Amino acid sequence: MQKQRQRVAFQGERGAYSEIAARAFFGHSVDLLPSETFDLVFRKVEGKVAAFGVIPIENSLAGSIHQNYDLLLKHRLTIIGELNVRISHNLIAHDGTSLSTIRKIFSHPQALMQCQANMARLKGVEIIPTYDTAGSVKKIKEERILDGAAIASILAARIYKMKVLKRRIQDDPENFTRFLILAQTKKLPQKANKTSIVYSVRNVPGALFRSLSVFALRDIDLYKIESRPLHGKPWEYFFYVDFAGRLEDRNCRNALNHLAEIATFMKVLGSYPRDTRFSRKR
Amino acid sequence: MQKQRQRVAFQGERGAYSEIAARAFFGHSVDLLPSETFDLVFRKVEGKVAAFGVIPIENSLAGSIHQNYDLLLKHRLTIIGELNVRISHNLIAHDGTSLSTIRKIFSHPQALMQCQANMARLKGVEIIPTYDTAGSVKKIKEERILDGAAIASILAARIYKMKVLKRRIQDDPENFTRFLILAQTKKLPQKANKTSIVYSVRNVPGALFRSLSVFALRDIDLYKIESRPLHGKPWEYFFYVDFAGRLEDRNCRNALNHLAEIATFMKVLGSYPRDTRFSRKR
Repeated sequence: MQKQRQRVAFQGERGAYSEIAARAFFGHSVDLLPSETFDLVFRKVEGKVAAFGVIPIENSLAGSIHQNYDLLLKHRLTIIGELNVRISHNLIAHDGTSLSTIRKIFSHPQALMQCQANMARLKGVEIIPTYDTAGSVKKIKEERILDGAAIASILAARIYKMKVLKRRIQDDPENFTRFLILAQTKKLPQKANKTSIVYSVRNVPGALFRSLSVFALRDIDLYKIESRPLHGKPWEYFFYVDFAGRLEDRNCRNALNHLAEIATFMKVLGSYPRDTRFSRKR
Repeated sequence: MQKQRQRVAFQGERGAYSEIAARAFFGHSVDLLPSETFDLVFRKVEGKVAAFGVIPIENSLAGSIHQNYDLLLKHRLTIIGELNVRISHNLIAHDGTSLSTIRKIFSHPQALMQCQANMARLKGVEIIPTYDTAGSVKKIKEERILDGAAIASILAARIYKMKVLKRRIQDDPENFTRFLILAQTKKLPQKANKTSIVYSVRNVPGALFRSLSVFALRDIDLYKIESRPLHGKPWEYFFYVDFAGRLEDRNCRNALNHLAEIATFMKVLGSYPRDTRFSRKR
């Protein structure tokens, strides 16, 4: 009997940047489940419709995808991996369309913003925000929009059999997105060397500093701190911290035990191998 | 000769929540300049088209308005005040429209999200995201959309002479937005007791912690920390910190001098009176 292929949920239509991340992480031995929303990706993994979920958490130009930080807190999934992917936007259209006949450009607002200067050179073109990059390629394909183009991945052009009018149209070539791989497991991945947690502290002076001292006192390096509002307590925050270390290391355990003394709430989101590609050395 | 009225720029159409904030801060002795984008608000104040600008910086449910953090860094304006405003959403329509005849609801995605559970009770209604809350009221007014309603402020209903079908339709009543008042000045406001800065640190272990120690070592209370990506250096950040203290206080000056030793970049965004309304005591 053949082993059943595992399913991986991602947000967006086929050809989304999340699909590129999913393929890069899992290869071709899995089936991919396009999903309409990020929330649906979490729910598919929780409901065992998918074994894994892939979500973007941070873009090197636009910043954090805050909705996904909130969903990590709300749902009970574990981060088992991360992946940095270079984002390269392309102008995609029907075969008969050329740069000079484009009157409309469709894409996700974030992609449109990242190609703003380049797009401004095309005169008399209307910019139309949509819910999805790859979904915009699908749209101009299905609705036969012959005077339109979409901004999306090369993969999206290939999937929907459309023409790439212009490659790499983003204004800043150094454009990366970090994706997280989610699963329903408590098992620690081999080579885990980075840990993500979320916590809150009492609303007293110095509380944030004291909470960070549990890492500094043990020479544990912080990679990132992100704050999100704590609902029902205006101007108080959840802090999301990524730090160097493996959950079962003694140093790491001690730090988290120390943090538990200080925090009013704490949740470990996962311990996983850090992706160092496209990072500056340190 | 009568004194010329000062002009205050805000983002959105007449009736926007930013207009409510501007009126609450300046009263009726100023003229208001609705502006299409946040960037335009900054540019109007920089270009002396307006004496002041009013921008939302943080919502107690949705979190920071990150674009405005980026614009504070990019432009050369000073924060001279802040104001917490309770956000109350209302369902607004034409006089002849009733709850049972609504087929479409228009508003800004943020407002739509904050009324999601309440709106789900209306069956067979299409939710249509727009660029602006007050702008949606204007739209259903001007386009005579009789089977549509907009989610916006009471002020918007009043300005466009439309009917309030239902008041306070947000799912969570504890919904506040903090606004900043911007000006082109280096003068410190009287009663300033809160200071905002932005800085970056070298990409070395412990750098963030050391930077926060300049406040902790002097018992200076931190109100907020926010991180934003540093373009061109993937996974490095600008830190925006709000802290207790007046720029010319010795304690505060010492802390900033100490921070300057550690930071690779530092900019003071302003020192202004803290608005403590809708905050928990501490």
